[in-house]
Amino acid sequence: MSVVFASIGMSLDGYIAGPNAGPGNALGDGGHRIHEWALDLDGVEEDQGHEDADEHVVREIRLRAGAYVMGRWMFDEGGAGRPDPPPFRAPAFVLTHHAREPWTRRRGAPFTFVTGGVTTAVEQARDAARDKDVQVVGGATTVQQCLEAGVLDELQIHLAPVLLGSGVRLFDRVTAGGRRFDTTRVIGSRGVTHLRYRVSDT
Amino acid sequence: MSVVFASIGMSLDGYIAGPNAGPGNALGDGGHRIHEWALDLDGVEEDQGHEDADEHVVREIRLRAGAYVMGRWMFDEGGAGRPDPPPFRAPAFVLTHHAREPWTRRRGAPFTFVTGGVTTAVEQARDAARDKDVQVVGGATTVQQCLEAGVLDELQIHLAPVLLGSGVRLFDRVTAGGRRFDTTRVIGSRGVTHLRYRVSDT
Repeated sequence: MSVVFASIGMSLDGYIAGPNAGPGNALGDGGHRIHEWALDLDGVEEDQGHEDADEHVVREIRLRAGAYVMGRWMFDEGGAGRPDPPPFRAPAFVLTHHAREPWTRRRGAPFTFVTGGVTTAVEQARDAARDKDVQVVGGATTVQQCLEAGVLDELQIHLAPVLLGSGVRLFDRVTAGGRRFDTTRVIGSRGVTHLRYRVSDT
Repeated sequence: MSVVFASIGMSLDGYIAGPNAGPGNALGDGGHRIHEWALDLDGVEEDQGHEDADEHVVREIRLRAGAYVMGRWMFDEGGAGRPDPPPFRAPAFVLTHHAREPWTRRRGAPFTFVTGGVTTAVEQARDAARDKDVQVVGGATTVQQCLEAGVLDELQIHLAPVLLGSGVRLFDRVTAGGRRFDTTRVIGSRGVTHLRYRVSDT
């Protein structure tokens, strides 16, 4: 059965975006620093027979993801708004309050809009993913909702050694009281630490 | 020359203590969960020829520390208030606004009270540490002050896979703009990830 996992970048002080995030400034002021480690990656697309730790992690996530779940904001900025190549190459399920026809990006996979809440979106993504896994790509609210609904099996945080000081927190007053986190893997490189947790009921 | 390093436990959502921290509840509600990984350690005191990753990290810190810098609250709760054996076995320098004579705990090392600010306290601790290192033990405000004053060479965070939801954050609107963090070591075990960063000027 598909594993439902979230994968998200976070600063050392807990932010996934800096202050003043908005249209045209998706990561907020300074938020690009969270993802600096990913800028120099190459060889992720093609197997060149060797890869460093960061490349390994990114490739692994890409290969696992058979469907995506994301919030509306992530769709606007990361799905529809990003230039080619399409960042999401598997069916994506977008949480929204407003029903809307599916949309398919040129050269991309379909985006389906789900008004029934996060559990419904994850169910639909599971069906679409078939034998692959479901990746929750964010933003913070979507990850929080998945945690609180108990539909997340795995949480991956790519922890960047930067302090943003303010912005959008990954965890903002989230207790996820009934959930237990077990560290299942830690991969460190100079510019980022890839943390992986299994999430289960206590 | 002595390295000035901070070593502090933090929850996945960035807290070093839970809500309602105060006298008799030093770690706040649920804050003990940040330190659960350390409860089962043994063999830290005596070298038994083998040790696990957590034991290695704890022992290494103990051996390095030739002097401590701490805030007043940490002194009250962790220094003076803790039962035997004394938790701090090297000279400690306590940041406070109120001048006070040095105090020596029975079977322990002296606590010196410093009213001249964090830079002064670190200087005095450097002298006392001789060829060993200076450990900043917290709390959050003290670590933040050290970061902002540029006197911290190394930051160790022991990241526990728990969400507290509220409490005392390690980084609360700290930008430390001029500081650069480089990941120099990551050691992961099931219950905690030991992160080590070199701190330098950008």
